[in-house]
Amino acid sequence: MQGQESFSDRLIERARQCESRVIVGLDPQIEAFPGYLQEALRRQPDHDLLEETLVAFNRVVVEATAEMAVAYKPQAAFYEQYGFAGLRALQRTIALLRAKGLLIIMDAKRNDVAHTAGAYATAWLAARHPLFAEANSWQVDALTVNGYLGSDGIRPFQEANRAAGLFVLAKTSNPSSGELQDLPLWEAGQPGLTVAEQMARLVACWGEGTEGKQGYAQVGMVVGATYPQAALALRRLAPRAIFLMPGIGAQGGSLDAIVAGAGEDGNGAYAASSRGLLYPFRPEELADAAWMEQAAARIHAVAQQLRQAIQQRFAA
Amino acid sequence: MQGQESFSDRLIERARQCESRVIVGLDPQIEAFPGYLQEALRRQPDHDLLEETLVAFNRVVVEATAEMAVAYKPQAAFYEQYGFAGLRALQRTIALLRAKGLLIIMDAKRNDVAHTAGAYATAWLAARHPLFAEANSWQVDALTVNGYLGSDGIRPFQEANRAAGLFVLAKTSNPSSGELQDLPLWEAGQPGLTVAEQMARLVACWGEGTEGKQGYAQVGMVVGATYPQAALALRRLAPRAIFLMPGIGAQGGSLDAIVAGAGEDGNGAYAASSRGLLYPFRPEELADAAWMEQAAARIHAVAQQLRQAIQQRFAA
Repeated sequence: MQGQESFSDRLIERARQCESRVIVGLDPQIEAFPGYLQEALRRQPDHDLLEETLVAFNRVVVEATAEMAVAYKPQAAFYEQYGFAGLRALQRTIALLRAKGLLIIMDAKRNDVAHTAGAYATAWLAARHPLFAEANSWQVDALTVNGYLGSDGIRPFQEANRAAGLFVLAKTSNPSSGELQDLPLWEAGQPGLTVAEQMARLVACWGEGTEGKQGYAQVGMVVGATYPQAALALRRLAPRAIFLMPGIGAQGGSLDAIVAGAGEDGNGAYAASSRGLLYPFRPEELADAAWMEQAAARIHAVAQQLRQAIQQRFAA
Repeated sequence: MQGQESFSDRLIERARQCESRVIVGLDPQIEAFPGYLQEALRRQPDHDLLEETLVAFNRVVVEATAEMAVAYKPQAAFYEQYGFAGLRALQRTIALLRAKGLLIIMDAKRNDVAHTAGAYATAWLAARHPLFAEANSWQVDALTVNGYLGSDGIRPFQEANRAAGLFVLAKTSNPSSGELQDLPLWEAGQPGLTVAEQMARLVACWGEGTEGKQGYAQVGMVVGATYPQAALALRRLAPRAIFLMPGIGAQGGSLDAIVAGAGEDGNGAYAASSRGLLYPFRPEELADAAWMEQAAARIHAVAQQLRQAIQQRFAA
């Protein structure tokens, strides 16, 4: 995909070019959509219209944010919930983003034993499936994965496409992430690394030798912007990992966490925002056919605000 | 789905009825399929034929094993890798199993923060999507999930359908599972529970108050049959969790692990086998149009052998 340049290099280059650290989530939820679209679906609740509605909304979001989006991050769950209509909309969204040369991080948190992880890797990262001559229309630039199974659950994703990026869950943004991730491991009679920190150590190990020109590895991490202290600790353990940092906005994450995660060169962390960017309106405010212009203007404004807030924090 | 009887009760009842503890994996891999099917796809490499081929093979497996299968466990990755053809085949396989009243455990290892976990739960466990009047054609009886995110990543799955079952990854069957899962946690100056054992403690907590008539909870665990000692330890920590135990066969798991996992009443553990059951032949051995009868006979024989080996071990 786009030659063999490493994902980390492509991401950093794109961030420089658009002077931004914002990754735009694409999490369609009909119940948060402009009232005009919801009303149309109520009148005609069919799957083709649902598909068109999902694509139409994503297109508005992409057009409103393309100038400041380092990458787009569709969340697989929000498409799976709508069955084939959702999956068709996801595939069309991937096509739309690729046609514009924009980077795609599929947030699917896939994980399994080696043999099975290989099948997920083929699904999302391979340029084509071995059975078919045509290109894989599901291929994305990077994928989120869950590292609970250890090395042999991660290697197949690395091997499927060396130019693809991975983000392993380390410290997640949700309130209960500490139930497992914050527990300290026993280390020679002392409380040692936490579970999340041990995951960061594994991430560093998986990334060794895969660094691109900018010095960042193929394997990055998901680190919630809701936990600034954790971001700092994890950065020390995996200095060459790109941090994908959700939680700014609806979940209350902080800009300090992004700075803490970014490392010395400032290139190591990107803020992923979904709900906060996608739905800066109440559905009933956008109830007529002019919804597109109005939604685009509001989404553009909040994305621009987020981009500037982050860039200013880094400049300070 | 099938009334409001809990999944654990339905599973145990079915196991008694068919005198078996075998769960049949449905992991389609064209390269392991009978030569006759592979050759047809080589001649005509199109997506419709691929879909038909996947369904045809699954149908043969289901017919050959229905008498001893406690449940069927399609692995989502092996369908996702084939794009829409694979997903259509998966949906038709779900329909096929439901029409026969057979239990379905979707092995998808989904996981995310609460809001997003809710969307996955809707996708796989809800009787219907809120938007539509018709039944959800993706609904299954149980789902595997990854508990790395803690409680708020699991509760939405529980709430989506109280009659559905969940299997949380605790100790996975793969060689590298110990890299994280076997590490001991620090506990008041001592090596305490391992990470996998802590997950079992969380599983026990999530299952509290959800027990069915047979005493087993809504939330079970995935425990590799490749680690008998771990199975014993995890059983003590989560006495009310059903164990889904993969790793018998291709991965070298042991029947002792199944016994260790089953608990005092012997109802707590079920052996999931995929590759070992599905492909007891070399592709070139089934190269002509008689593949169906031959594949069915071989698959039936190995499934029957596995069922008997396990039942005898429990009777001993």
